[in-house]
This record gives sequence, C-alpha cells and structure tokens, in this order.
Amino acid sequence: MNTADLGLPVDVPSTALFTDQYELTMLQAALKAGTGERRSVFEVFTRRLPEGRRYGVVAGTGRVLDAVENFRFDAGVLGFLRERGIVDEATLEWLSGYRFSGDIWGYPEGEVYFPGSPILRVEGSFAQCVLLETVILSILNHDSAIAAAASRMSSAAGDRPLIEMGARRTHELAAVAASRAAYVGGFATTSDLAAGFRYGIPTVGTSAHAFTLVHDSERDAFRAQVDSLGRGTTLLVDTYDVTEAVRMAVEVAGPELGAVRIDSGDLLLVAHRVRQQLDDLGATNTKIVVTSDLDEYAIASLAAAPVDAYGVGTQLVTGSGHPTASMVYKLVARAHSADPKAPLEPVAKKSLGAKSSVGGRKWAARRSDEYGVAEAEVIGTGPVPAELIDDRLQVELVKGGQVIAREPLDAVRDRHAAARARLPLSATQLSRGEAVIPTEYL
Amino acid sequence: MNTADLGLPVDVPSTALFTDQYELTMLQAALKAGTGERRSVFEVFTRRLPEGRRYGVVAGTGRVLDAVENFRFDAGVLGFLRERGIVDEATLEWLSGYRFSGDIWGYPEGEVYFPGSPILRVEGSFAQCVLLETVILSILNHDSAIAAAASRMSSAAGDRPLIEMGARRTHELAAVAASRAAYVGGFATTSDLAAGFRYGIPTVGTSAHAFTLVHDSERDAFRAQVDSLGRGTTLLVDTYDVTEAVRMAVEVAGPELGAVRIDSGDLLLVAHRVRQQLDDLGATNTKIVVTSDLDEYAIASLAAAPVDAYGVGTQLVTGSGHPTASMVYKLVARAHSADPKAPLEPVAKKSLGAKSSVGGRKWAARRSDEYGVAEAEVIGTGPVPAELIDDRLQVELVKGGQVIAREPLDAVRDRHAAARARLPLSATQLSRGEAVIPTEYL
Repeated sequence: MNTADLGLPVDVPSTALFTDQYELTMLQAALKAGTGERRSVFEVFTRRLPEGRRYGVVAGTGRVLDAVENFRFDAGVLGFLRERGIVDEATLEWLSGYRFSGDIWGYPEGEVYFPGSPILRVEGSFAQCVLLETVILSILNHDSAIAAAASRMSSAAGDRPLIEMGARRTHELAAVAASRAAYVGGFATTSDLAAGFRYGIPTVGTSAHAFTLVHDSERDAFRAQVDSLGRGTTLLVDTYDVTEAVRMAVEVAGPELGAVRIDSGDLLLVAHRVRQQLDDLGATNTKIVVTSDLDEYAIASLAAAPVDAYGVGTQLVTGSGHPTASMVYKLVARAHSADPKAPLEPVAKKSLGAKSSVGGRKWAARRSDEYGVAEAEVIGTGPVPAELIDDRLQVELVKGGQVIAREPLDAVRDRHAAARARLPLSATQLSRGEAVIPTEYL
Repeated sequence: MNTADLGLPVDVPSTALFTDQYELTMLQAALKAGTGERRSVFEVFTRRLPEGRRYGVVAGTGRVLDAVENFRFDAGVLGFLRERGIVDEATLEWLSGYRFSGDIWGYPEGEVYFPGSPILRVEGSFAQCVLLETVILSILNHDSAIAAAASRMSSAAGDRPLIEMGARRTHELAAVAASRAAYVGGFATTSDLAAGFRYGIPTVGTSAHAFTLVHDSERDAFRAQVDSLGRGTTLLVDTYDVTEAVRMAVEVAGPELGAVRIDSGDLLLVAHRVRQQLDDLGATNTKIVVTSDLDEYAIASLAAAPVDAYGVGTQLVTGSGHPTASMVYKLVARAHSADPKAPLEPVAKKSLGAKSSVGGRKWAARRSDEYGVAEAEVIGTGPVPAELIDDRLQVELVKGGQVIAREPLDAVRDRHAAARARLPLSATQLSRGEAVIPTEYL
C-alpha cells in the first residue's frame, strides 16, 4: 500500500523507512557475519541537558510504541530497497518478516530526566534493535524538546491556561506531535485541529486580522463574529485602535463578551489598560487573551498583568531555543550469542571528552530526601540497592514484541505535573543553571 | 477514510485538518455575514530575515501544491468537526464541497527572497483562501528555514558533497521534508530512506559505533562490513584509536577502501593525520568523510583540511539556529463582492513598529546591474515598469484550482544554485549582516 495512492499528505507506507540507510547496511553485514543474532541492549539517553536547562521531560514514548508496532517492511518498501540496491536479497528476505519481538523498558512518559538517565532501553537481537534507532530518536528528540519548553512555560504561567498555536511555524505533522508534547508539558488547549482529531486535545480558536479586514469596518466584523459564534466568542481588538475596538466590542457583544485578544504592542501596558476599560464598561467577566511571540520569560513577565490566558506559537514549537533534545541510542551491552543465558558484556566507545558514555545495562532510581523532594538521579549497572527499590524509574513498555503500556494522554500530563512538583523548587526557576539534581553512578 | 485503520504513522486523513480552528470559525462567520464570497488576495511574506542572514530560500512550494490539492473535508473530518461542535451545519455543508478553485502565484521554488518579497499570492473568495493559511505557512516556514541553512552550508562546502543525516534530530516526517529542503539548498545526498522513497533523493550510509561494538574486535567488524558491502564501503574509524583503526581498515579492505568516517575529536587535525596515514599506506583514493555537529562555520573552517565529504545532522534540521522562517499569510486586498470586475481595495492592519505590512496586490522583480548581479528586490502595487518586465519573479502555480507548475526537484535545486550565483558575492559570506540587497517599494 502506497499512501500516495490515497491522496494522503505523507507518502510513506509504514514507519520502517523513517530510518537511516546505514541501519540496513549494518544489518546486512551483521547477518552475514552471524553477529546479527547476538543478544543486545541499546539505551537512549542524553549526555547533557540543553544549556541552562534544569531538567528534561520525557515525551513521545506513546508515539514510539506506535512506531515500533508499525515498523514493517511491506512490498512497496522492499521493492524500493531492491530497486535502489540498498541491501541484498538475503537481507530483504529477513526484513520481509520483521516484527520487533524484543523488550522495551523506559521512563514512563511525562517523567523528568537528567544527563545520563536511561530513558528507554531496547533489548533483543542486534539485528532487531539496530533498525529502530532512527525512528525512536526522531520521536523522542523532537517531542521531549517541545515538552521541556512547554513545561517551563506552564510553570511560568501558573494557573493561567496556555493555548498551543504554533502549527504555522513548524512542519505540519511536527505540529501535531508538538501539540501533543505541549499538552504533556502542561498546555491546556491547542489551535491545531489535527491534534484534536488525533489525540483528543481540546481545541480553541479566536479570530485573525484578515477577518476584520475583509469586512467594511471593524464594527461589521465584530457583529458578524458575534452573530455567528455568540457573545462568548473572543474578539481580536488590535487591528486598528485597541481602545476604540474594546469599546466597540462591548457595544456589539454586550458585557457578556467572552474575551478579547491582544496580539501586538506592549502587552503588559495594554492588558492593564484594556482590563480597566472592560471593567469600566461593565464587562468584568470578559477575559483577556494575549499572544505575540511569547516565551517562558515573556509569560513570567506578565504574571502581574491582568491576563487570563496565553497563546504561544513559535517559541513552543521550536523548543524555546532548543528544538532538539540531543538524545542518542547506544549499544551498551551484548552477548556472544542469541542464548538468553549467555552473559551480557558491557560495551562502550572509547572516546575522550564530550562523546563518552557508560557501558552496561542500567537501572535508574530517583532518590528523595525526607520531605519527598528529589535529590539525585541514581544510575547503576549492578543490583539495585534495597533502599532504592521503590524509587526505580523504568517500567516495562514492550514485552516480547507486545506493547503492554499504553495509556491515555491525560495520565501522562498528570504524571508530568507530579514529577515536576517533586523536584527542588529551583527546577522551575527560569534563569540558566545546571541540572537541578546531580546524576550519580553506582 | 481514517488512516488509523491502515496502521499508518499519521492518523490524519487529508491536509484539511492541518488547520487552526479559527480558520473554520472565521469561515462560518463570514459565510453567514455574506463576506465569505468577497474576492480576496492573500500574500505570504516575511517582515525580516533571521538575524544576520543575507538572503532567504523559497522551499516547500511543491509540497504546498500537493497540500492544496489534498485539502478536502471527507466524512471522517466532517464527523469530527460536527462532534466537537466546531462549526455549524451550514458550514459543514459548505466544507463538504470544498475544492480550492482560485489562483496561486509565487516565486518559483528555489528562488531566493528578501524582507517583504511576496513569495506566494493566493487569490479567490475569502472563504476559500482563509482556510489555507495554516498549512501553507507550516510548509513554507519549515522548509524555507531548512533550505536557507542548507544553502549556507553548501556555499561553505564548495565542491565537496554534503550528506544530510539529521533524521534522528527532528520529527520523523519533518525529517523527510528537511531532506527535500536540504537537497534544494545544495546537499548531494541523504541518509533518510523515506526521503529517497518519497522524493528520489540519492541515499547513502556508512556505519555506526554499535556495529563495531557488537563484534568481538574492531578487526572483526571491519571484516564483516567489507565482506558484505565490498571494499568501496565507508568504515567508521573512531570507536577506539583512530590511527590503529585506519591501519587496520586498509589492512582489511586494501587500498581500494572507499572511505573512512571520523565522528569525533579535532576534525581538522585528525583529517590531516588520517590523510597522511592513508597516503602512506597507498590508499590514496580512499576518501575521508567527517561528521560531528557540523554547521556552516565548522564546514568553512575545514576548507583547508583534506576532507572529501561532510555529513550534517542537527544543525541542518534545526535551521542552524533559525528553525522557522517567520513568514505570515496576510489579506492584502479584497473586493466588495465575488464579481471578478469589482475593484480590489488594498487593506492592512494598522500597527506601529514590527508588525506593520503593506496593503495591495503586489508584483515583484529583481533588478540587476550591468553585470547581471542583483541589486534590489523591487516590489510594487501599480503597473510594472517596462524595464522590469523581464525581471519579474512571480509565476503562475495554480490556475482556477488546477496545479499547473509541478516540476522535478532537480530543476528546483538548479534554480537555487543559479539564483544564489546572481546575488552579490557577499551573500555567501557567513558573518552576520543585513539582507544582501535592499527591498524597494514602488
């Protein structure tokens, strides 16, 4: 099945092609050498957080599970690989039967992470596991980057709701994943209908300047919007003169007007003025929504302003300066055969400096102080100390190829809020700093 | 048709949902008010280039044409909109028959652009055109940002080929579009199989550290790779000790070894050493491929190093610091009716400072000096001066809803190289500066 035949926007028939070519050529060489069957352990982690960030947010795990399940080489894909001469016939034959049959453990989605946290662990034959590298990293690197930015913004916003409205600033499908990650990070709603359709995220909308401009006057535009969408609608008041527009908005909709949106100017100043004006007009319940290149710093700076909701676009979908999470997928241990009893030997690239990593199959636990506040990310390769047994972070996600840990997105969102709340208070400070808790290796 | 039923990675049935909710609520209000039928002109442009950049690159136009063609509201989408109560029945009825039937003009894909350049112009009824805003901006903002970074990198690389290998650093489908945009900007190949499948871009691959590590020794790994993939393969030589690995690589593959890849360390220094060692071993035709967080500056700094190809990942897919192009889609003119003879009136938001824009349906031309070097981007709303007739930039892309300007990606890539070559030489300097030619309004 080629989705091009369906007129779909994405002409890729399964997740199997979201893969770098070298995964397949390594597979071919390993199959021929007999090393493809060796029992292997790959781990996903990041060597460092983006500069200045205090914690990371695991996001995309649910999408990874979908991607692993749909990683199949159908006739269309195999035909492409054959035609291009990318791998030989023996490898094509092997690929035609590909179903991931190994195990995946990981931090549950929404958890926070730190440098070295083994947020995903993929176990199975080398051949089975190596193929999944690219698609797993694509998803986790993108979604976690967005969720981390969203989490900072939602900290800064406090109880005020955040609206995700960045679809127009990123790839049309990255936008859908970004809405999902934003929701995990604490956003309340999205403007992106595809995200509502695919993930059930609540969708909202206001109005654009074009709507005002297509009418003969701002008054006509407001009347048209209220006539059709009701008094509870949100009117955009900065096409011409804000004060005049607010006056007219209340005149047209009455004090029951739902909200006004301000998309330009000094938002702090304008919000105060508009609030005063609305109150003077009796529209004391009319809310104020602000948009216009907001990031976590701008949101924080508006904490004292009479703002009821923030709409965030560009800075959300671009990770507020850090659009990718720099996670890697590394072979950390392997046996000499497929035998489940063969001992796993730790392996690691020998590298000086920035690209070093720690070999061995790892567990991770978050140690807390007597008040339940996290104080260290503890990672080890040996037995888990008894006092950390209950603080272990990894859960089983896929067992023998079967996904066993699907969960609703609201559960993920709640988990993130809870995990963040257990971090030291300085985690949510916006100024640059180190990871808020240290990573300790046992 | 819901693609979820197909097990596809993207559960969005057409491009119609890559849309912000307010497009649909504005549509409903405009249809009810009778203003939805007003003949309207929307333009896509950017108010400024990313800080320090000398020119922009139009990319994604071909994908926009696909998206417009596939912008259809089928039963699944309409059911979703009805269930969520997003628009009323009259609007759903209107949407069920939606086919864009207007005209689209634009800069041909691959062209360069400057602040204010009207790179796309969408004409039709307000109702028809307003709906396309989000998906058009998503595509152009993402793809143009990537292509601009790619263009700078390809300038810096000169005749040496660039390999796009950033799939793991961005959303899995954004990665496919990024490969396409990178190719437009001058990259030679990609590691992303989906980009090869979808767009016919040549794909390449080397090997990862995991492949070396799964074997008992580096020698075993090299032998396995050469046995299976031939002597022309590229061996990764920095898992343990580079000098020892290069020696062993030539021992295993012979002087016919295709290439070695270096992925860490001081690339300038290591490349010189490895070249010397390869030459001493008689492997004078063995190439050196370098990777490791390269951007245009790192590429330029390696100009004097004996490097044969660059692999670029993170910095390419994140636009080298500018992951989005900040283009907007603005109503610039409208008539009072659907009548094609009704006069078009220019419209624009009245705004102080950064968010101002110029009303009216615009033409654009690039004026050149006597040597054929571009000297200004000239934009106007009146008649085109005779001396600029042959320098006009916009071409017809969609006529009465029919796409009339599809073209092969290689033509786009060639156009970009030619357009860049006609800019003043300072366009390709990497240091920060203003747009390399001024934008003049007539």
